[in-house]
Amino acid sequence: MRYAPTDPPLFTLATGPVDSYPAVLRALAAPVPYDYDPTFQATYQRVAEKLHRIVRSETVPVILHGEPVLALEAAAASLIGADDVVLNLVSGVYAKGFAPWAARCGARVLEHAVSYDQVIDANDVADVLVRHPEVTVVAACHHDTPSGTINPIEAIGAAVARHGALLLVDAVSSFGGMAVDAATAQADLFISGPNKCLGCPPGLSFIGMSRRAWAKMKGNPTAPRASILSILDWETAWRAENPFPFTPSVAEIHGLEAAIDLYLAEGPPRVWARHLITAQACQAGAIAMGLALWPAQPQFASPTTTAIRLPAGINDAELRAEMRARYGVVCSSGRGETLGKLIRIGHMGPTAQPLYAVIALSALGGTLRKLGVPVNLAAGIDAAMSVIDAASTE
Amino acid sequence: MRYAPTDPPLFTLATGPVDSYPAVLRALAAPVPYDYDPTFQATYQRVAEKLHRIVRSETVPVILHGEPVLALEAAAASLIGADDVVLNLVSGVYAKGFAPWAARCGARVLEHAVSYDQVIDANDVADVLVRHPEVTVVAACHHDTPSGTINPIEAIGAAVARHGALLLVDAVSSFGGMAVDAATAQADLFISGPNKCLGCPPGLSFIGMSRRAWAKMKGNPTAPRASILSILDWETAWRAENPFPFTPSVAEIHGLEAAIDLYLAEGPPRVWARHLITAQACQAGAIAMGLALWPAQPQFASPTTTAIRLPAGINDAELRAEMRARYGVVCSSGRGETLGKLIRIGHMGPTAQPLYAVIALSALGGTLRKLGVPVNLAAGIDAAMSVIDAASTE
Amino acid sequence: MRYAPTDPPLFTLATGPVDSYPAVLRALAAPVPYDYDPTFQATYQRVAEKLHRIVRSETVPVILHGEPVLALEAAAASLIGADDVVLNLVSGVYAKGFAPWAARCGARVLEHAVSYDQVIDANDVADVLVRHPEVTVVAACHHDTPSGTINPIEAIGAAVARHGALLLVDAVSSFGGMAVDAATAQADLFISGPNKCLGCPPGLSFIGMSRRAWAKMKGNPTAPRASILSILDWETAWRAENPFPFTPSVAEIHGLEAAIDLYLAEGPPRVWARHLITAQACQAGAIAMGLALWPAQPQFASPTTTAIRLPAGINDAELRAEMRARYGVVCSSGRGETLGKLIRIGHMGPTAQPLYAVIALSALGGTLRKLGVPVNLAAGIDAAMSVIDAASTE
Amino acid sequence: MRYAPTDPPLFTLATGPVDSYPAVLRALAAPVPYDYDPTFQATYQRVAEKLHRIVRSETVPVILHGEPVLALEAAAASLIGADDVVLNLVSGVYAKGFAPWAARCGARVLEHAVSYDQVIDANDVADVLVRHPEVTVVAACHHDTPSGTINPIEAIGAAVARHGALLLVDAVSSFGGMAVDAATAQADLFISGPNKCLGCPPGLSFIGMSRRAWAKMKGNPTAPRASILSILDWETAWRAENPFPFTPSVAEIHGLEAAIDLYLAEGPPRVWARHLITAQACQAGAIAMGLALWPAQPQFASPTTTAIRLPAGINDAELRAEMRARYGVVCSSGRGETLGKLIRIGHMGPTAQPLYAVIALSALGGTLRKLGVPVNLAAGIDAAMSVIDAASTE
Repeated sequence: MRYAPTDPPLFTLATGPVDSYPAVLRALAAPVPYDYDPTFQATYQRVAEKLHRIVRSETVPVILHGEPVLALEAAAASLIGADDVVLNLVSGVYAKGFAPWAARCGARVLEHAVSYDQVIDANDVADVLVRHPEVTVVAACHHDTPSGTINPIEAIGAAVARHGALLLVDAVSSFGGMAVDAATAQADLFISGPNKCLGCPPGLSFIGMSRRAWAKMKGNPTAPRASILSILDWETAWRAENPFPFTPSVAEIHGLEAAIDLYLAEGPPRVWARHLITAQACQAGAIAMGLALWPAQPQFASPTTTAIRLPAGINDAELRAEMRARYGVVCSSGRGETLGKLIRIGHMGPTAQPLYAVIALSALGGTLRKLGVPVNLAAGIDAAMSVIDAASTE
Repeated sequence: MRYAPTDPPLFTLATGPVDSYPAVLRALAAPVPYDYDPTFQATYQRVAEKLHRIVRSETVPVILHGEPVLALEAAAASLIGADDVVLNLVSGVYAKGFAPWAARCGARVLEHAVSYDQVIDANDVADVLVRHPEVTVVAACHHDTPSGTINPIEAIGAAVARHGALLLVDAVSSFGGMAVDAATAQADLFISGPNKCLGCPPGLSFIGMSRRAWAKMKGNPTAPRASILSILDWETAWRAENPFPFTPSVAEIHGLEAAIDLYLAEGPPRVWARHLITAQACQAGAIAMGLALWPAQPQFASPTTTAIRLPAGINDAELRAEMRARYGVVCSSGRGETLGKLIRIGHMGPTAQPLYAVIALSALGGTLRKLGVPVNLAAGIDAAMSVIDAASTE
Repeated sequence: MRYAPTDPPLFTLATGPVDSYPAVLRALAAPVPYDYDPTFQATYQRVAEKLHRIVRSETVPVILHGEPVLALEAAAASLIGADDVVLNLVSGVYAKGFAPWAARCGARVLEHAVSYDQVIDANDVADVLVRHPEVTVVAACHHDTPSGTINPIEAIGAAVARHGALLLVDAVSSFGGMAVDAATAQADLFISGPNKCLGCPPGLSFIGMSRRAWAKMKGNPTAPRASILSILDWETAWRAENPFPFTPSVAEIHGLEAAIDLYLAEGPPRVWARHLITAQACQAGAIAMGLALWPAQPQFASPTTTAIRLPAGINDAELRAEMRARYGVVCSSGRGETLGKLIRIGHMGPTAQPLYAVIALSALGGTLRKLGVPVNLAAGIDAAMSVIDAASTE
Repeated sequence: MRYAPTDPPLFTLATGPVDSYPAVLRALAAPVPYDYDPTFQATYQRVAEKLHRIVRSETVPVILHGEPVLALEAAAASLIGADDVVLNLVSGVYAKGFAPWAARCGARVLEHAVSYDQVIDANDVADVLVRHPEVTVVAACHHDTPSGTINPIEAIGAAVARHGALLLVDAVSSFGGMAVDAATAQADLFISGPNKCLGCPPGLSFIGMSRRAWAKMKGNPTAPRASILSILDWETAWRAENPFPFTPSVAEIHGLEAAIDLYLAEGPPRVWARHLITAQACQAGAIAMGLALWPAQPQFASPTTTAIRLPAGINDAELRAEMRARYGVVCSSGRGETLGKLIRIGHMGPTAQPLYAVIALSALGGTLRKLGVPVNLAAGIDAAMSVIDAASTE
C-alpha cells in the first residue's frame, strides 16, 4: 500500500503551513459578519487585546491581513528610511532575505553573517555596534526556519538596547512555540503570525511594537500610507469604534481568536514544553539512528523545527516523495542555501506533541533504509522514547 | 509533560467510537433541511442506494436511527417469533449478548460456543445443524470485538445455506474494514453501522436483507410496528416519495453519505488493505515486543482490532490511564468476560493507517515498560515497520 | 426564476427538523472521542446537568439516543404496566398516537378528547379524574404540533397532582420555545428533544423525571431492560464514572451542549419572547391577509407553530410545492386528521425571529395569490410589522 | 425585543463582507495541507483553471493573497510606469480612489469624472481618448459600490480597444453577480475577488490578464518583485509544479474552490438572474414605499447593490443602528462622498435571493416609519412581490 500524490497526507509535519487545531478550523466556518457590524468590531478589538497579552509588546499589536512575509515587508517599508543604517544579522536564508526590503527604502545595510549552521553571538553584535555607532536599526531573525536554528534573541536584544538602535525581530516560526515575546526580546518590532506555532492556516500576521517604533515610523516620510504595506494605516483600527483601512480577513480573525484561546487555556509554558520535548525527542532519535543534525551544536537547534542533514547520496525531493508514498508523512525541504542539504520536521502547534517525534523518525528512518542508508531505526525510536519518557513522569 | 484527563486525547485508537474522517465531520455541519424537503428525500434515497452498492444485500438496506445495538435488537424482535429455533454461534461477548434478544421473542435458543480466544468452525456449525434440523435462524457475530477475533463467515454462511435456516450476521465492526458483505456471507440479515470502519460518529445502523428475510418478518406476528424497534415500518421509506415512520437523523445521514463517498473514492480493496496492514503491523510488533495476542491463533485475529493479552500483574484501567497520561493515546479495554484480560487497539476507518501501529506500539510499549514489564519496544517497532515496509513496495 | 426541487431551500420554516444554529452545526463537527474517554465522560455529565438546569425536573434528565418518538415510546414502555389505568388527553394527532404505546403495556386506556382545533380544559380533566379514581397515569401533549395548539399544562398538572396520578407530558415542540418545564407542569415525566426549539438536528431526546416516576418504573416488571427502549438502563449513566448501556451519539451530544449554551447565554425569557412575537406576528398577518387560523380561539395558538386553515379549493401539497418553487420557503403540512386542512409555519429555535413572520407571510400570500386566492398580502405584512414594531420599543 | 449590539445579526445585507455560502464555510474548515504537498499544488492549479473558466481572461488569472484592494494596488504598481498616461474614469468613490495608486508610479493621471449618481458615457470616453491620444492606460470601475451604479463596461471596453490603450477594470463587486467578465469587457486587467458575489469571506483577490498586459508589466522597470505587491512573482505559480513566492492562504483557496463549484453547478445565468431580480424587487419596493434611489436613472442601478437616498433629516448611523436593533438587519452606509447621503442594501452571493428584498424593505421601511418618515411599507412590499412574482412563472 502506497499513498498516491492525490491521497491526502496522513501527517503534515512541515514547517508551515502546519496542520491547524480542530477548534481553529471550526472557527473559520463561523458565519461571516459585515466588518462594521458591532459584533465584529468587538471581536477585532478583543483579538487584538488577546494578542497583546501574549505578544507582550508596549502597544497593542497591529494585525496585517496577509501571511508573515507581508508583515516583514511592511515593517521594513514603514520603519526604515533613507537615512537609516541597518545592521542585518544573518544566520540563515530568511535573515538574508530581509536585506533587499531594507535596502529598497534607501538605507545602508550592513550585514553580520555567520555560517547557516551556526547562530549569532550576541557579543559579536555588541562589537559590531561599537564599530558602527551609526546603526539605527538592527534586524534579527529569531528562528531561521530553513536552518532550524535559534538565535539568542534575549542577549542580542540586550546588546542592541545598550546601543540604542531599534530592534526588529522576525519571530514568525518561534513565537508561540517557545518562551519568546516582544518584552523578553526587547524588540521594537516583534513580528510573527498565526500560521506556525499557534496552529492557524496562513493568511494573517502581526507586529508588536514599541512606542519608539511608532514614533520612528510616523516620522518616516517614506512609510507607506493607503497601501497594503502600510502599518500606520492600521494604528488605531484595532479599537472597535474606528474604521478599517480596508476589509479585514474576517474568517481568519475568527480562527486566530480560537487559536489564542486554546493557547491561553492550555497555558503557554505547557505549550512550549511540548514543543521542546518533541524537538528533543526528534533530535535524540535522529542522532541515535546515525544521522546528523544540521545545527552545528545541539543547543542551536530549534524547539519548533528539527533540521537533519541529508546523508550522502540522498536526494531531498526523492526522499520526501518516498516518505509520503510509503507512510503518508510530509516534511519540508531546505530553502535557498540549505535546499538539498537537509530535511526539516516541523514541531508547531498541533504537531508539537512528543509522539509525533516517533512518527517522524519511523517515517524518515524507514525511508532512508529503503533508499539504502543503513540507519538504526530501532535505536532511534528508543532514544526518542527515552526523551519522552523522561519528560512524562508525574 | 503529561496529558490531563481534561486534555483532549492525541490519538483515539479505540474500537469505537472511532475518530471520524474530516470530510464526515464537515458533512455533519451542513444545513439541516426539513426531512420532507425534496432535497433531503433525494439524499435519503441516494444514501440508501449507495449503501446497497457496498452492502450487496438482495434488497436496499434499511437504515435505522440509532447505533448498531438498535439494529441488532430490532433484527431479533422483527425476525424471530415464538415458533423459531435459533442457533446462536458464540465465540465472544457480543455473540453471547444476542441470545436474550432472541429468547425475548419466545424462540428456543440453542448455543454453539467456543472459548473466547477461538473462532467458530464452520464444520461444527454444519454438524450442529444436522443434529438440529429444527433450527430456523442462525445468528453469527462476524467480528466479536471484545476478543478481536474474526469468524469464518463465508464458510458459516455456506453451511447455513445448505441447511436452509436464515442467517443473521453482526458485521458491525468488520464491515468496511475487510472483504465482507451480505453477498459473500450469504446473510439474510447483514447488520452493521457507520461508526466503526466507515469512520462516522455513532448514531445510525443499517441492515441489508434478503427477500426471504423480508417475507419471514412480514409473516411474524410479533414483529414490531409503530416502534423504534420496527424494521417493517421502514421498508419503503428509503424511496424519495415515501414517508418516514419518524424523523430520521438528518445530520448523521449527511455524515454517512460523506463516508460512503470516501470509501468508494478510495476503493474498498485499498481501504481493506490498510486495515489489514495496520493490524498485521500491530500484531507483529506486539509479539516482537514480547507480548501475546489474545486470539489463540494468528489467523483468528481481526484486521480491525488487535487484542493483546495483559501481561501478568498489569491492571487494565491503570495501563490505559497511564498510556493516555504519558502519550495521549486512548485504547479500549476488554468487555465482559474479556475485561481485565486484554487491551484492544482499534484499526477502523481513519485510524486504519499503517503508521498508527507504530503509534500504538510506542505508547503501549512505553507504558508497559514504565509499569515494570520488560518489553522490547525497539524490537516491536522494527517488526511493525518490517510489515509496513513489505507492503509499501511499488 | 424558480427554485428547483434539487435546489437547497432558502428558508426552512418547517415544524421540525428545523434549521440548526450555526454554533450547533460547528459543534457537530468536533473530533469524536471514545465514549469512555474522560473528556467525553465529563462532557456527558456536564450536558446532563445543564439539561437539568433548564428542564427543572426533580432528577437529572435521562438522555435517549434517538429522536423524541423514542423517548415517548420508551416512557410508555417503562412507566406503564398491566395494572395501570391511563387517561390520555387528546386534542390532536400526536396525543392520540400515544394511546397504542400505553395499551401495548397491557394497561387500560381511557381517552378524554376534544376536537383538534380546541385545547383540553383542566376542569374537565379534574372531572374525569373524579369519575375515574382508578386512573394511575395521565398522558398529555403540551403542544400538539399537527394542530399548532397549546394545552394549559400548568392547570392540567395541578388537577392531576390533586388526584395523585403520575403525569407524563409530551413537550417535544414547546420546550425551549416558551415558559414550560417539568416543574411548572408538575410533570413526572417531561419529554422533549433538542431538535425543535433548541435548534439541533434530530437524533436525541430527553426525559426529566420525578422521584416517584423512577420508583414506579423500577417497580414495573415489564419496564424494558437491555433494550433501546429502556430508561432504567440509563439511570446512572449520566455520571462521568458510570458506564453507558450502549454507545451514545457523541456528535449529537456535542451539538446539544452548544444548543444549551446558546439558550442560557441568550437567556430563556428572551428566547421565549422571540418565539412568541414571531408567532403573534404570523397570526396577525395571516388574519389580516384574510386567512383563518386553525386553532378555534387565538389563545389556543402555539408560540412555536402557526397553523393556518387552507382556503377552500387549495391543495396542500401543491401549495407547499409552489411556495418552495417561487420563494424557496419550506413549510409543513398537517398530519393525520389535520393533513390537507392546514399549513404550518414553524417558529422554532433559529427561525423564531420576528422578521421570519414576514418571510413566511410573503411567501404564503404570494403563493395563494398565484393560486387564485384573493389574499391581501400588503395588509398581512402591515399587521405582522405592527406586532413586531410594538415589541421593538426600547 | 431588540437585538443588542452583542447579539449576532439576523441578516447581513451589507455590500461586503457578505454572508458566505454554507458550503464555502465548511470548505474553510478542511484540514490544512503543506502548500508544497502535491494535493495542494494540484488544488491550486485546479482553482486557477476554474477561475479562468469563469473570468474568461486571455491567460490564467493570478490569485493574490489579500482582499481586492491588494489586487488594485498591485495592478497599478505592476502595470503603470513613469511613462504612462492614465485616464481614470470616475463615477464614484472607488474609481476616484484609484488615482493615487496610479500617480504613485509616476504616471500622469487624467480624470474623466461624472457626478456620483451618474455613470460614465462610453461616447465621452471615446471623445476624451481622441483628445488624448497619449493615454496608455484606462482605469474603470465597473460597479462603484458606494454609489450602487454600474458603468457600461462593454461599450467603454470597445472604445478603449479602438484607441489601443490598456484597460484595467475593477469588477470587484459586480463579477459573479451579473454578466460581466474579462472577455466581454475587453479588459487587459480584470480585477475581482471572492468576497462579494461569489460568497466567500474576504482574504483573496484575482486578476484576469491579457497577454498584452503581461508584456507591459514585464517591461515595466518599476513593477514590484519580491513583494506582496508583485503580480509578476506569481506568473507561473498557478502551475502545480512551480513554487509559490510566499505561502498562499490555503484555507481561503479551499473556500474559493467551493464557491466556484457552487457557481458553476447553479449556472452563472441563473446566479445573475437572482441577483437582478432581487435588486429590481428592492428598487421597485423602495420607490413604491416613497423613497428615491441614489442612481439618477433606474438603468444605472446595480444588480448587486441597491443604494437608496436617505430621506431628509435621517441620520445614516442612527438609521442603521435602529434597523439592526429592531430587526437584526445589517446594511451598509455610503462611503466618502456618499456617506450620510444613502443607505445600501447588498445583493451578493447568498443574499441575492428575491425574498431578501422583502426582508430589506420591511426592515428599512419599519425603521424609517419609527424614525418619523411616512413611508408606505405595504405598498413597498407589494411592489417588490410583484417583481418577484413576475419572475417566478414557470
